[in-house]
Amino acid sequence: MKAIVNVYLKEGVLDPQGKAAHHALGSLGFDNVSDVRIGKQIILTLKATDKAAVEAEVKEMTETLLANTVIEDYSIEISE
Amino acid sequence: MKAIVNVYLKEGVLDPQGKAAHHALGSLGFDNVSDVRIGKQIILTLKATDKAAVEAEVKEMTETLLANTVIEDYSIEISE
Repeated sequence: MKAIVNVYLKEGVLDPQGKAAHHALGSLGFDNVSDVRIGKQIILTLKATDKAAVEAEVKEMTETLLANTVIEDYSIEISE
Repeated sequence: MKAIVNVYLKEGVLDPQGKAAHHALGSLGFDNVSDVRIGKQIILTLKATDKAAVEAEVKEMTETLLANTVIEDYSIEISE
């Protein structure tokens, strides 16, 4: 099974990488952009086959290692 | 409008960050994981309202700045 974990900074947390990209896009003439936020997308391939068990395990992995839940939020999608 | 750009390394390109996360998950006892790939998720907020125009513009931004198309692939989703 595959699990996609999207990890992004919480609202209100400064995102310097996003700010830099925003600025660079402006310099290149893309004036339509009003905000840029940059997060991580983690794609896990797992051997297990039970969707509910995989979801619980991936949640545990995310909270233990993949995301810093003090400043980051995350979402998890499980697919075959 | 919002645009979500997912940028990930092409198949076959070594992903050291993913390998490190995979190894760390193994050390923590998560033995079910057979592969980890880590990419970027870029969330753009745009002032324009025409979906087709936004999609074309975001594609140009991605190819110019946000992704390195030599080693990275990307996908774009546009939402209201």
